[in-house]
Amino acid sequence: MISTRFLPFLAGALLASAAPAVAATAPTVTELAAPAAKAASATRIDPTFWWVGMKNPKLQLLVHSPGIADSKLNMAAYPGVTLEGTQKLESPNYLIVNLVISPDAKPGKLNLNFTGGKTKLKYDYELRARNTSDKSRVQGINSSDFIYFLMPDRFANGDAKNDVIKTARARTVARDSMYSRHGGDYKGMEQHFDYLKSMGVTAIWPTPVVENDMPKASYHGYAVTDYYNSDPRYGTTQEYAQFVQNAHKNGLKVIHDVVLNHMGSYNYLFLDQPAKDWLNQWPTFTRSNYNSSALNDPYGSKRDRDLYNKGWFDTTMPDVNQSNPLVATYLIQNFIWWVEYTGLDGYRIDTYPYSDPKFLMDWGKALLDEYPQLGMFGEAWVGSTAQQAFFARNILPPVDGFKSNLPGVLDFQSLSGIQDALKEKGSFNRLYEGLQGDWLYEDATRNVVFMDNHDMSRVYSVIGESLPRLKMGFAWLLTTRGIPQLYYGTEILMKNFSNPDGLVRADFPGGFSGDKQNKFTAAGRTPQEQEAFAYVSKLGTYRKAHPVLQTGKLMQFIPQDNIYTYFRYNDQGETVMIMMNANPEEKTVDGARFAERTSGFSSGTEVVSGASVSDLKSFKVPGYSALVVELKK
Amino acid sequence: MISTRFLPFLAGALLASAAPAVAATAPTVTELAAPAAKAASATRIDPTFWWVGMKNPKLQLLVHSPGIADSKLNMAAYPGVTLEGTQKLESPNYLIVNLVISPDAKPGKLNLNFTGGKTKLKYDYELRARNTSDKSRVQGINSSDFIYFLMPDRFANGDAKNDVIKTARARTVARDSMYSRHGGDYKGMEQHFDYLKSMGVTAIWPTPVVENDMPKASYHGYAVTDYYNSDPRYGTTQEYAQFVQNAHKNGLKVIHDVVLNHMGSYNYLFLDQPAKDWLNQWPTFTRSNYNSSALNDPYGSKRDRDLYNKGWFDTTMPDVNQSNPLVATYLIQNFIWWVEYTGLDGYRIDTYPYSDPKFLMDWGKALLDEYPQLGMFGEAWVGSTAQQAFFARNILPPVDGFKSNLPGVLDFQSLSGIQDALKEKGSFNRLYEGLQGDWLYEDATRNVVFMDNHDMSRVYSVIGESLPRLKMGFAWLLTTRGIPQLYYGTEILMKNFSNPDGLVRADFPGGFSGDKQNKFTAAGRTPQEQEAFAYVSKLGTYRKAHPVLQTGKLMQFIPQDNIYTYFRYNDQGETVMIMMNANPEEKTVDGARFAERTSGFSSGTEVVSGASVSDLKSFKVPGYSALVVELKK
Repeated sequence: MISTRFLPFLAGALLASAAPAVAATAPTVTELAAPAAKAASATRIDPTFWWVGMKNPKLQLLVHSPGIADSKLNMAAYPGVTLEGTQKLESPNYLIVNLVISPDAKPGKLNLNFTGGKTKLKYDYELRARNTSDKSRVQGINSSDFIYFLMPDRFANGDAKNDVIKTARARTVARDSMYSRHGGDYKGMEQHFDYLKSMGVTAIWPTPVVENDMPKASYHGYAVTDYYNSDPRYGTTQEYAQFVQNAHKNGLKVIHDVVLNHMGSYNYLFLDQPAKDWLNQWPTFTRSNYNSSALNDPYGSKRDRDLYNKGWFDTTMPDVNQSNPLVATYLIQNFIWWVEYTGLDGYRIDTYPYSDPKFLMDWGKALLDEYPQLGMFGEAWVGSTAQQAFFARNILPPVDGFKSNLPGVLDFQSLSGIQDALKEKGSFNRLYEGLQGDWLYEDATRNVVFMDNHDMSRVYSVIGESLPRLKMGFAWLLTTRGIPQLYYGTEILMKNFSNPDGLVRADFPGGFSGDKQNKFTAAGRTPQEQEAFAYVSKLGTYRKAHPVLQTGKLMQFIPQDNIYTYFRYNDQGETVMIMMNANPEEKTVDGARFAERTSGFSSGTEVVSGASVSDLKSFKVPGYSALVVELKK
Repeated sequence: MISTRFLPFLAGALLASAAPAVAATAPTVTELAAPAAKAASATRIDPTFWWVGMKNPKLQLLVHSPGIADSKLNMAAYPGVTLEGTQKLESPNYLIVNLVISPDAKPGKLNLNFTGGKTKLKYDYELRARNTSDKSRVQGINSSDFIYFLMPDRFANGDAKNDVIKTARARTVARDSMYSRHGGDYKGMEQHFDYLKSMGVTAIWPTPVVENDMPKASYHGYAVTDYYNSDPRYGTTQEYAQFVQNAHKNGLKVIHDVVLNHMGSYNYLFLDQPAKDWLNQWPTFTRSNYNSSALNDPYGSKRDRDLYNKGWFDTTMPDVNQSNPLVATYLIQNFIWWVEYTGLDGYRIDTYPYSDPKFLMDWGKALLDEYPQLGMFGEAWVGSTAQQAFFARNILPPVDGFKSNLPGVLDFQSLSGIQDALKEKGSFNRLYEGLQGDWLYEDATRNVVFMDNHDMSRVYSVIGESLPRLKMGFAWLLTTRGIPQLYYGTEILMKNFSNPDGLVRADFPGGFSGDKQNKFTAAGRTPQEQEAFAYVSKLGTYRKAHPVLQTGKLMQFIPQDNIYTYFRYNDQGETVMIMMNANPEEKTVDGARFAERTSGFSSGTEVVSGASVSDLKSFKVPGYSALVVELKK
């Protein structure tokens, strides 16, 4: 149920937790204690393959095969590759193999021969050549981007053949149930690249696309069951790599949504656990307290820290023990693998602070060592600027040994702020103060700004379904500092509250065969929907064409009279003024206060309407509206 | 009017401003532009005297006398004292004299002879010996203290002779007007030292006692008209020094309330300004924006910063320009002077962040260089932990050149928290999160915790006049980390809201002759008032006798089920558990969660009631109550 995570443990509108909605009826830890035959019978090696020429020469293989632990490994001589040794785990079905791959090793296959134990296994482990020809790979994510965040199952179904996978635990597509699969996939997204591009979108962030072979509520993707496999209902792993490549060809980047903290309870590593300490174990099912505060509370208890870091996110989501170095390496390699294999551009890290703090530092460092340009932003759903900044690169010294190396975070502070501002009797104070708090960050322009997402009520509903105020929100989203993120469908006025029915994750109308309406086309949209879409498109494409809105400096003025004014400007002489009026009535604003930014300019053009602004001494701002004014000499 | 400062420019219950209520009818800057004859005719030198043997050998005298600027100064030879030179200011009525006093100079009088200009002046400037015999001087303020904060005009009148000062601008005592003088004084406070001690109070903080010779609303003390004079309606400057000494003899410390940011508009330095740049001048009266955010907002405008730092607090309170080095030195010396002269124990700094940031660093450093043990805490009435910590010693690197050296601040974050918790449908979340934010401080135990003060509605009114919940508040105040501060009369259930009538500054019943009730005695209190008083007294004296509540470590647990549990403990094996229940009904709490702190103990005693707590496995907490349990082996 979605409601399980909406716990009112923080004052005000903010919630301190973060993660996907999950069905409460999944198997519990007790039910799952005995390894399932299906999983134990499989033979596999993770990473499924690797590359020569990685910066880190070490490679840790996790070999899984019944009774493999007692085997001895012989590796055929391979120039540049050294077998450092093997390591048994608690389970007889696993063996760790440690290799070192020197920089001059060539691509090829390592002949691994496991003999002498219960299991005899020959395995040709592949070492590939890295792709160095495609320059569009791993472009990073930065403030020049405009992210479209969607749930692939709910966006568009481009390939009916993968709707039902016969070997999957859930084999139904039921579009009338919010907890079932609906059929969306990679092809569905690809078919709407043009739609996204028409809004000025430059990056797609789908909820996790890795295998979630869960019997229930598998659609959201946050319960990984195979770290090295695409969920086949979106397409094969190879098709995912192709999807990334296709996106790049279309000028779109791809953000890969990753979960470090937990796995799905049908993951083979849970069904047949390598060792007890692969997971954070509890005598009985113990839920996370969903509150990061104790981590850096100088008065925090070990109990509260453990509940947070080691408590389970849900009965169906065992908590991964990243303080185990073998687990840490497994996860680090997995996420290097996805970058190297697909060329993806950035990672969004789910439930970021829930993971072991030292592991987070190591994981981030390892990824950035290998791919300095990789985009990374984390979900740290906390209630204060200071706590949010604690989980990003900041100006602070280490606290209890933790110093985040995460370039950016999802900005829940400005989220609260913009929602406050857009409500009927709105106020800009929290929005202003939220950005003011940026002084704690190393670089807050790496933060992702947004007005809603899949874990909360849709902004259009939150603000009382006011189109004028939603347009104010779009104006803010596309002109403030940071990387804007639009949740799919907000541009066509999709609505609903997070409780109780999950409808905030409804299908995009027109994305599925048989849909009566097609909101991907102007003809399918109501006049109001078209007005919203046109506003986003106009400003999104303007933003894309004007670096000042991407990388320009920001200057904001303390809100007065419920009017919030800020500027984006750069050394090239470009300046855009944004003036937002949260009052229902028109206001006249004296421009003298803004002389620091308007001097040298004499007039302007409102970007969306094209209306000219004849002088900068005084501004008339209609009620519930934003002016986005490009200043002219 | 009090209402001028209660501006709703921050979201939620917090206000970002801070300062005393002032009458709006005082003279404006325009009316006061012409120097008043009264002030200009005075001859004086500030500091009024000085000492030999100070760590800083430099001394800057500000000589004020009509036409003195053109005079030449001859100083009679004085072993160890060097005249470095003089400096003219814009006004003909001032001269700066710079002296250096070597460590071996002896006490005596410097013969200063000003000749050759319009004014001839002979002045014997006194250099005193420092008081090194009295060990009770300048004891500092720390978490072993319990502060009683009062308005001396409103607490008790011990000397009718100083009620009306014939030379003062306001010569009426009118106890029926909240903006007039009521007659309280030093003697009145002294007469009630025993009352304070009976509650375990260890320190008195009166609102400023320096001269406020303002025609209206002079009672609050925040409009200084003479930096070197006690307000004669409290007593002479010498009587103030005696008051500090008497307090020390009674085991009470004294905190001196200081205003750096502004002065009263009848200060001689305003009536006859040494130079235009002694003050922050504006073409027309320009009010502060009362919002510190732009100071460290990476996107802040110069305009907003200037309005904050240089805008006037009120028409009657000119803004002092501390970026002028002469002004900075004048203020630094003045506050060294008060410490050295009186032996006071600590400073509370009004409207701390409003002053020039660099000056604040210099002022704090100079004071602490001279008196490392001096207590100091500032008023930084801001809305977030991060912003509050910015103005105290913290773990942060300098931001825009500013790094606070202020040991502590008034803790407005836990104030919001405890008020939230004590309301009818209270929540502990903000209280918990407020303390959690302490990770940003160098040492948050130097912060002062409180439930109300003279600038806000009284807590008893805020929480709906619930005695049980107020007692919970007392329990928190006297057991949490930091230095507790009680606002006078809260212990006898004084109430009222800050708007519109100023009654939060009402007289303490029994402090004034003719009072029908005397709440200083048990006989004068109603049963409810006695219950409140007894609760504070019991816990306050317990705190005073038990270092664990003063300097013990704190461990707090994330509030659950509207119950907040924390511990104070130390290496000597003392542990006190505090468990607060914000639910109206009794709750049973499983003690297992607190094993980190209860292990090794088997039972306890509730400190206030004396009730024994037979085991620590489970606790019953009555609705709206706090248990303060001393644990036993």
